[in-house]
Amino acid sequence: MRVSVVGGGTITDAEYEQARDVGRLLAQRGHTVVCGGRTGVMEAVCRGAREEGGETIGVLPGEDSRAANEYVTTPIATGLGNARNVLVVLNGDAAIAIDGSTGTLSEIAHALDLGRPVAGLGTHDVAGVEAAESAAEAVEYVEASV
Amino acid sequence: MRVSVVGGGTITDAEYEQARDVGRLLAQRGHTVVCGGRTGVMEAVCRGAREEGGETIGVLPGEDSRAANEYVTTPIATGLGNARNVLVVLNGDAAIAIDGSTGTLSEIAHALDLGRPVAGLGTHDVAGVEAAESAAEAVEYVEASV
Amino acid sequence: MRVSVVGGGTITDAEYEQARDVGRLLAQRGHTVVCGGRTGVMEAVCRGAREEGGETIGVLPGEDSRAANEYVTTPIATGLGNARNVLVVLNGDAAIAIDGSTGTLSEIAHALDLGRPVAGLGTHDVAGVEAAESAAEAVEYVEASV
Amino acid sequence: MRVSVVGGGTITDAEYEQARDVGRLLAQRGHTVVCGGRTGVMEAVCRGAREEGGETIGVLPGEDSRAANEYVTTPIATGLGNARNVLVVLNGDAAIAIDGSTGTLSEIAHALDLGRPVAGLGTHDVAGVEAAESAAEAVEYVEASV
Repeated sequence: MRVSVVGGGTITDAEYEQARDVGRLLAQRGHTVVCGGRTGVMEAVCRGAREEGGETIGVLPGEDSRAANEYVTTPIATGLGNARNVLVVLNGDAAIAIDGSTGTLSEIAHALDLGRPVAGLGTHDVAGVEAAESAAEAVEYVEASV
Repeated sequence: MRVSVVGGGTITDAEYEQARDVGRLLAQRGHTVVCGGRTGVMEAVCRGAREEGGETIGVLPGEDSRAANEYVTTPIATGLGNARNVLVVLNGDAAIAIDGSTGTLSEIAHALDLGRPVAGLGTHDVAGVEAAESAAEAVEYVEASV
Repeated sequence: MRVSVVGGGTITDAEYEQARDVGRLLAQRGHTVVCGGRTGVMEAVCRGAREEGGETIGVLPGEDSRAANEYVTTPIATGLGNARNVLVVLNGDAAIAIDGSTGTLSEIAHALDLGRPVAGLGTHDVAGVEAAESAAEAVEYVEASV
Repeated sequence: MRVSVVGGGTITDAEYEQARDVGRLLAQRGHTVVCGGRTGVMEAVCRGAREEGGETIGVLPGEDSRAANEYVTTPIATGLGNARNVLVVLNGDAAIAIDGSTGTLSEIAHALDLGRPVAGLGTHDVAGVEAAESAAEAVEYVEASV
């Protein structure tokens, strides 16, 4: 399946490694990563997925597909600005949120609004989001929920 | 100024009256209401604003401007589905959130992400949202913050 | 009714006066102008409409409603870039195209695709567009067709 | 590179075979097809590309990625309706238009507006579109122009 991974664009090293672990696990289990295509969590999860040979879709806010991080295999330019956040979660069967600020919160809200299961790692405390303790737990949750 | 008012499409009578009060107060003070143009909070706030001769903009998810509630003076059809939520808050200088579920949460998040001051009445508890006790307090907060 | 007026952002003085005439006529007859909110034809048609006390809606490509020309009474910011072209014609019951390049052609095509009657003044020769000789003829055509 | 292929959703057998040829040629030469993901030209070009092992991206108007034709390898759901037409051509380095009505015309216009080279096969006669006589000629044109 496809899993949208959303989260902060500026993160700590520990968060980067956790997002990378999420990417590795998703790819190992045959899932495709969908994300916003930029830095931070988006880069880390794509990097992890690529290390395991997985596919990564980056749905970008701008018009230039070259703005994607180097681990995105399929960049999708939108030119929609923040409205692209909806497309990031629309294109996953489930979502995993890691850290993140208000942009990530909008993606969590849109995912829940679309009925997607959402696992959270150190992110916003929102009703309907399953708080996970580890990358493995987050991946298990979304696999069990779709 | 323009104030985006976001909230649930299905609400209680008490919430309806509160949203209507917000609309009345905004119009009395010369502000234009921006909302999603549909039912519940959206209808109530437009109704209150119209009672005081105010203007109301309804940014609709669908392609048909006739889907707006009867108190919308300027319906804007978008055909964008949930992506129109961004446009609702983009077109206000500030936002007031009343009740609401995940759709409202996405609007709160987008408003904060855009740097808009947000007052909340019985809505999601999100960092950055000023919890108000009454319609008057919510209106005062956004007036003082822009 | 609402009439979308689309056309070039950089135009000759003669085209400017023609677009202004279209705006005056639409406002005199009680119609609201919908346009892209910027320069050239968009400014001229809003200016003419305002001279006759009409209302003008400007659907902007960017996030800042202050980018609208001074004759727009209701600016709508979208942040959608070129995708906003669809919204310009979606929000009119008919369209009038004046001059214009590929952006205008996209608006004509979207208008026809949505089943809107379209009158053209010195614009692209597209099947389905009624070529008008004057502002008055263009306005008469869209009034007769809706 | 990526080539956007746009055209009618309801086409003749001859047009279907021509679009399929375009897909085969693009894939043989290592290019990825981007299209609207549905029927007619969109299905034919994806089918041809898949016959040669190529990749195909389908940018869909609706929210359900399962609405893509069976030859799309990467469906992208948008929920944007006709506004998705912009995204179809934004994600190609060039475009080939085959047959088509007003929806296709809007895609041609957006492609030209974005500065993309466009080859046409039995499609709208628009300034800036290179009229090609065959699938091979269309593919050669876009390769030479990017």
